[in-house]
Amino acid sequence: MEKNNDFVKQITKKSENLSKWYIDVIKKAKLADYSPMKGMMVIRPYGYEIWELIKGNLDRMFKETGHRNAYFPLFIPESLLKKEAEHVKGFAPEVAWVTIGGNEVLKEKLAIRPTSEAIICSMYSKWIKSWRDLPLLINQWANIVRWEKVTKPFLRTTEFLWQEGHTVHSSYEEAEEETLKILDIYKTFAEKYLAIPVIPGLKSENEKFAGALKTYCIEALMPDGKALQMGTSHNLAQNFSKAFNIRFENKKQKIEYAWQTSWGVTTRLIGALIMAHGDDSGLILPPEISPFQTVIIPIAKGNRKQDILSEAKKIYDKLKKNKIRSFLDDRDSYTPGWKFSEWELKGVPVRIEIGPKDVEKKQLVLVNRINRKKIFVKQDNLLITLKKLLKEIQIDLFKRAKDFRENNTNSVEGFDELTETIETKRGFIKTGWCGSNKCEIQVKEKVSATIRVIINEKNSNSKKCAVCGKKAKHTVLFAKSY
Amino acid sequence: MEKNNDFVKQITKKSENLSKWYIDVIKKAKLADYSPMKGMMVIRPYGYEIWELIKGNLDRMFKETGHRNAYFPLFIPESLLKKEAEHVKGFAPEVAWVTIGGNEVLKEKLAIRPTSEAIICSMYSKWIKSWRDLPLLINQWANIVRWEKVTKPFLRTTEFLWQEGHTVHSSYEEAEEETLKILDIYKTFAEKYLAIPVIPGLKSENEKFAGALKTYCIEALMPDGKALQMGTSHNLAQNFSKAFNIRFENKKQKIEYAWQTSWGVTTRLIGALIMAHGDDSGLILPPEISPFQTVIIPIAKGNRKQDILSEAKKIYDKLKKNKIRSFLDDRDSYTPGWKFSEWELKGVPVRIEIGPKDVEKKQLVLVNRINRKKIFVKQDNLLITLKKLLKEIQIDLFKRAKDFRENNTNSVEGFDELTETIETKRGFIKTGWCGSNKCEIQVKEKVSATIRVIINEKNSNSKKCAVCGKKAKHTVLFAKSY
Repeated sequence: MEKNNDFVKQITKKSENLSKWYIDVIKKAKLADYSPMKGMMVIRPYGYEIWELIKGNLDRMFKETGHRNAYFPLFIPESLLKKEAEHVKGFAPEVAWVTIGGNEVLKEKLAIRPTSEAIICSMYSKWIKSWRDLPLLINQWANIVRWEKVTKPFLRTTEFLWQEGHTVHSSYEEAEEETLKILDIYKTFAEKYLAIPVIPGLKSENEKFAGALKTYCIEALMPDGKALQMGTSHNLAQNFSKAFNIRFENKKQKIEYAWQTSWGVTTRLIGALIMAHGDDSGLILPPEISPFQTVIIPIAKGNRKQDILSEAKKIYDKLKKNKIRSFLDDRDSYTPGWKFSEWELKGVPVRIEIGPKDVEKKQLVLVNRINRKKIFVKQDNLLITLKKLLKEIQIDLFKRAKDFRENNTNSVEGFDELTETIETKRGFIKTGWCGSNKCEIQVKEKVSATIRVIINEKNSNSKKCAVCGKKAKHTVLFAKSY
Repeated sequence: MEKNNDFVKQITKKSENLSKWYIDVIKKAKLADYSPMKGMMVIRPYGYEIWELIKGNLDRMFKETGHRNAYFPLFIPESLLKKEAEHVKGFAPEVAWVTIGGNEVLKEKLAIRPTSEAIICSMYSKWIKSWRDLPLLINQWANIVRWEKVTKPFLRTTEFLWQEGHTVHSSYEEAEEETLKILDIYKTFAEKYLAIPVIPGLKSENEKFAGALKTYCIEALMPDGKALQMGTSHNLAQNFSKAFNIRFENKKQKIEYAWQTSWGVTTRLIGALIMAHGDDSGLILPPEISPFQTVIIPIAKGNRKQDILSEAKKIYDKLKKNKIRSFLDDRDSYTPGWKFSEWELKGVPVRIEIGPKDVEKKQLVLVNRINRKKIFVKQDNLLITLKKLLKEIQIDLFKRAKDFRENNTNSVEGFDELTETIETKRGFIKTGWCGSNKCEIQVKEKVSATIRVIINEKNSNSKKCAVCGKKAKHTVLFAKSY
């Protein structure tokens, strides 16, 4: 069988140019495509199926913790968006505006939602009267538009898909608890399903959400040593409830402003998934989130062709019955070698080969996408061996990514070591920080790196701020980022 | 227990004013609410959960027939929308236009999709080269904007949610087969899940989709005698493939234009569901599509309060384990009577009551939402009896709606009888039609009724056209409509 064919030849090597490899893989594996709408991509079925798996699993986790889905309007009248001052300042420059509807120029222009706090809070102020109405735990799956200058499929696009949770509580403590509960769901999901290790923590004032009191996030390290923010969870405190007049009668029969949170992850998660695990042959998808966990390729030739095909079909049916997502590639117009390359490119974690010898011996060959190791397995043992292999691959991918992150996290002291390490080694740079905006900005101006996350270790205040040398308040991770 | 409380008192009687009852029920049952964006509604969790059940079931049916989901951009550049002449003529008056993005006036204005043929076809022309790429069977779940002058929650809103299938085939026959296959899925879904009987058939030229060769639809009759279009399936033939240059090399190595279909159902289905089955006490939801199939109401008082509550919890757990969607209403702040009314209003098909006597006798009381009939059942027999009751309710709702339709379908001959029947009786009016636009428009101008669907019975051409008296080509159903 040919090992290197057209498919793989046309892909830039990941080890040589991550950015070019990333685009090649997205196009060749048919995850997404550029559209005639500049900055907006088409998510093709194979990419969308990954999103469906992300969505399905997160949705279940949200529902298990008492959240319900709803749907709010796409358009936000300008006057509404302006109600919370910080919020509109942060988002106005990125808004797409509708000014004409039904052939008439509108009296008030309408923002396409860049996020839905404004429209949702306007409803909450109608719905919430009493502590009995709280907590209100609502999530929305929706499309979002932000006018971006530089775009990259999945990572930054003018339109993207996301979920946005918007909850209301009767105390600060309860809102904080919710913010952290969601952060934990995001971390669990990223690590257990996407097999991407993440670091949870607070954002600095510079990096927080426009209108939030506090923004928590999960941050991952990509193979080029740049950080990627994978999800955010905001404690909004009473900023929006005051702007939108969301008040309730508490148990002591006093009227007070409600406490809120909001939180979201986007189709950007697919970008993280692509970058984190792939190799020079293409994608590698963690079994938990792969549209197809196995692909069955019959090597059907000679006079046993029919036996082989019908055996392959039987295996497909068996896997389907056992809820293992599989694809039977019985196309006549492609050689097995072509198929091997195509499915490696598409990152299917396990390939099942069945040829004349295998039918004879009542065996199958399982091939691990990570290392191409072959396992010969008796047909009767397929399920057990396959399930074990899928679990192993899931764990190995996580472990690989975690090892990478650990090998690319450096502790430094002082401004020179900090900036030099960022310039020469990239990765996460752990250091002390005094807490001032000024110190953070100084680093950004010198080496374009920012504080990705405040991790606040126990001994944080025994350190010194890497920039000003004063006593540190926090331990933080600096990095260049997407 | 109070039978009539605030809840029900505040609802207009369905029998007196369907239109007012409809709005009352939507607001009181918290299905949806008006938003600050004129013409756009908020779908609240209880309404959205119905949509999730609609979506889940239809999505499964689409996938079982080989369709895959994808996502295309929200914006369509004006030049693209204009490519198919009939299409733009039909949709341009309803478009919302984006003219400003990122603080700059755009060179070309962007339509918010009123439907996605244009943007999708522009991609298909890139993706399709050969018969090997066909059929291409793609569906999209998305939001749509059409600038409507008069709106009504779920039935007609400026923004709505829908699915739109867009498929490409290598022959006319195959496209026609797909169009009809989908029509059949829509019919099955409406009847089996929504318990709404529908009539499938062709639309007249006047009523067909802008750009289609043929539009098929399913039509239902609402309790006020008006027809509601519940879904459409279009054979686009080569109209779009010629406008967007979608060509493929066929098996004979000749280049030809591809054959296409498109089809969709919207959140309007929820409007149909509300109207079709409710009564003076509120909604009645078919078990297959009800967010909660049962509500458990402990009547917890006296010294057995704890026993009753813990028994109720056990029942809830048992139902959950058996995948019966249930809600345990153990709120302390409401009386059982209030809860009965609230859940009747919300249309939950079966109420399960458990009080002191029931705990003693190890029994439960099941109450049928349609007729309030009580069934006393031993705890051990709960599952069997409940499942049977849910099935019965599903069937009864369908039967009631079908009887209503049959009792409100009249066959007529001649213009006078046709127009008089429409004016006095409403409902579906079955008659002969010669096939001319002119005759159809004459009826519309006189009594605001249109041909809802061409049903083409075997003996159609033995009839006369109700308008001109010439030999009929078709049998059709006239009606006033939503």
